[in-house]
Amino acid sequence: MKPVGIVLLGCGTVGRAVVGLLRRNADIIAQKAGARLKLCAVADRSLKPDAALGLGREVIFRSGEPLAALPEADIVVELFGGIEPARTLILSALGAGKDVVTANKALLAEHGGEIFAAAAAAQCAVGFEAAVAGGVPIIRTLREALAADRLSTVYGIVNGTCNSILTMMSRQGSDFARALSEAKRLKLAEADPTLDIEGHDAAQKLCLLAALAFGTPLTPAQVYTEGITRLTPADIAYARELGYAIKLLAISKRDGAALEARVHPTMVPLGHLLANVDGAFNAIYVEGPALGPTMYFGQGAGALPTATAVVADIMELARQRAGAARSRPQPLGLPLEALRRPRLKAMGDVVCEYYLRFMVQDRPGVLGAIASVLGRHRISIASVIQQGRDREGSVPVIMRTHEARERDLKQALGAIGRLRMVGAPPAFVRIEEKLGS
Amino acid sequence: MKPVGIVLLGCGTVGRAVVGLLRRNADIIAQKAGARLKLCAVADRSLKPDAALGLGREVIFRSGEPLAALPEADIVVELFGGIEPARTLILSALGAGKDVVTANKALLAEHGGEIFAAAAAAQCAVGFEAAVAGGVPIIRTLREALAADRLSTVYGIVNGTCNSILTMMSRQGSDFARALSEAKRLKLAEADPTLDIEGHDAAQKLCLLAALAFGTPLTPAQVYTEGITRLTPADIAYARELGYAIKLLAISKRDGAALEARVHPTMVPLGHLLANVDGAFNAIYVEGPALGPTMYFGQGAGALPTATAVVADIMELARQRAGAARSRPQPLGLPLEALRRPRLKAMGDVVCEYYLRFMVQDRPGVLGAIASVLGRHRISIASVIQQGRDREGSVPVIMRTHEARERDLKQALGAIGRLRMVGAPPAFVRIEEKLGS
Repeated sequence: MKPVGIVLLGCGTVGRAVVGLLRRNADIIAQKAGARLKLCAVADRSLKPDAALGLGREVIFRSGEPLAALPEADIVVELFGGIEPARTLILSALGAGKDVVTANKALLAEHGGEIFAAAAAAQCAVGFEAAVAGGVPIIRTLREALAADRLSTVYGIVNGTCNSILTMMSRQGSDFARALSEAKRLKLAEADPTLDIEGHDAAQKLCLLAALAFGTPLTPAQVYTEGITRLTPADIAYARELGYAIKLLAISKRDGAALEARVHPTMVPLGHLLANVDGAFNAIYVEGPALGPTMYFGQGAGALPTATAVVADIMELARQRAGAARSRPQPLGLPLEALRRPRLKAMGDVVCEYYLRFMVQDRPGVLGAIASVLGRHRISIASVIQQGRDREGSVPVIMRTHEARERDLKQALGAIGRLRMVGAPPAFVRIEEKLGS
Repeated sequence: MKPVGIVLLGCGTVGRAVVGLLRRNADIIAQKAGARLKLCAVADRSLKPDAALGLGREVIFRSGEPLAALPEADIVVELFGGIEPARTLILSALGAGKDVVTANKALLAEHGGEIFAAAAAAQCAVGFEAAVAGGVPIIRTLREALAADRLSTVYGIVNGTCNSILTMMSRQGSDFARALSEAKRLKLAEADPTLDIEGHDAAQKLCLLAALAFGTPLTPAQVYTEGITRLTPADIAYARELGYAIKLLAISKRDGAALEARVHPTMVPLGHLLANVDGAFNAIYVEGPALGPTMYFGQGAGALPTATAVVADIMELARQRAGAARSRPQPLGLPLEALRRPRLKAMGDVVCEYYLRFMVQDRPGVLGAIASVLGRHRISIASVIQQGRDREGSVPVIMRTHEARERDLKQALGAIGRLRMVGAPPAFVRIEEKLGS
């Protein structure tokens, strides 16, 4: 079968991550898309040939113009950002019958109407999962997964720069200027951070979220937008005293026939999940009368998370290009013949930390006896809590272990349970210390 | 255009919610699916005609057998649950060329291989978004949105009954038996809760999640499964002292070529988002080397959230049935001609609570003067914090207001800023008290 041809307009950090992902995961990508993908050409002003990425001199061009309508291309991926030449190139790609994938929220927020109309006229598709919260698949979720409900509210943390700055101000008590320069140093803020810290980036994203959630196209000028520059560490501290965290939220709600659309610093109850979303992470709540509250959390930016969104869009469009029989995803993503029986790790081989509780007689030497059994089974103790005597004269001994193998633990607990000074069978709970986030 | 015919097998609480949703949201559902949906027949042993749901006597049948291959049906929705007759009916529906939508995790965990193979042979689709965590669109997310990455880990809270019981044990210090009977009283646990509290329901869901994430079919018998019945309030309290919450997690991880698959009570650091997911909510983490950590949160069960998943699947299959030109979703879900310009609420009409900070001279009467201006503008004060004097002799006065209209607030702040005893312009932050969850 003819491979599906891809053209990449722009090959900065996200573009390079896209190329890397297409190459590294070529096998599962082809299986799930039902088609082989071929990178035909890349437009970038300063890109050099790169053997590791498979980018030879012959696929590198300096301008996007000759590529938008390249005959061997099926899908044009726009990663230039900004309004022009992105807008013109996307329109000519659509005019030439190409599907388009873009991460360009500014363009879609300002000119989405024009671009979607051109796509409809050409019967081509525009994928833009990467345009809002790169590592959070909120676009297809709103468009497809939640399509049955008449959604009422969408709101969330959609700007990682602001959230990083607010997290620093909150944790270190530093003022805005200092947190901003720290964020710049850590590459969490751009040299000119205006778009982010004044809330304009969040407003652009809110336009797309509201259009999807409510079927109402919005432009950034219609969104009330207030940035984080006037916040002080004192306000953040007082907010905490009152039981709130301050987050820059993008909020759109239906209120009868009217729509609220606003971006501003917002106090969020400390018990709310959003209050616990820190640093560069994004999180978006979506609510509807049938659905109830839902939340979607992940990395808002970063080359690799954004690349996963770009490539997911490419795969979907490639699957549709590849032909009718393959045009919908396999039930489990991969085709049935590509599924592999798992080689299951035996539970005895699982390694984690453990919480242990022993009920013991309150006599000298008990702790030593337990510790020495654990030691013999290669289990080391991270911390111990010993509490007062209970009514029957036995006392609980609580231990947290370092990482240990389940098989060793079970043997050790068996041996400890046979000690005369130990009462009821030892209790244990596995600890997952290294969970993400 | 011929409507897409739907047959419903089973019309209990979820089935009725599906019928209600199809009826209530018929307009947007038809627009987004590109086809009108028609409920042709419902099989249910005890369903009575229901005018409010549009269920006349003529569409109600007592058995699913005559319906699975009904000529006017395009999509068969199986909501009976359990293995038989669901399995046989689904296989005959697929054999007759129908697409299938099911919420039946037990069936797919045990017999997914057979059903997906039958679907492939018939070139029909099986939608099962509702089978795992009803209100959380995790199936399409894993299958499509995250398809570009080679995922490493999927884990989460997937059983609302267990999470409700653990939340009660943690908040009230009650023991397992008491929390379980409380959960039964609140309809959060079934009369026979064995499948839930012993972890089997979570293991079934983990089979589907792992198959999607890793391309490895699993059966529940391959999942190490441990329930929550042995946990004590003391263990939960000690865990908290050590900095952890105890949650029943379903966990599957890649470790080299081996796969871990296990369900058991797990200690999760209190700062982790999962530690803050309480009650009947579900939340699933998915991680990959490119993606990083992501999380998906929502109602795990309940008729309406589950119905949104069922209907989303119906819409996707209906769109594909309706024809090639319409076979992919519109970029914004609704067709362009159905988009409506929003009627935007003016920012002055937005109502919320406010945090206010005034820097005032430390003199008698200041608080009274501020409060009376607020009162004149219909703003009532919920709480006040007054702090010590700062170096310049001015003191901060912090207030939280009850709900107020932004226009009133701005006018009040303007007037207060003109008071002689008030220094720097008043600072304010909007409070969103009624955020979901």
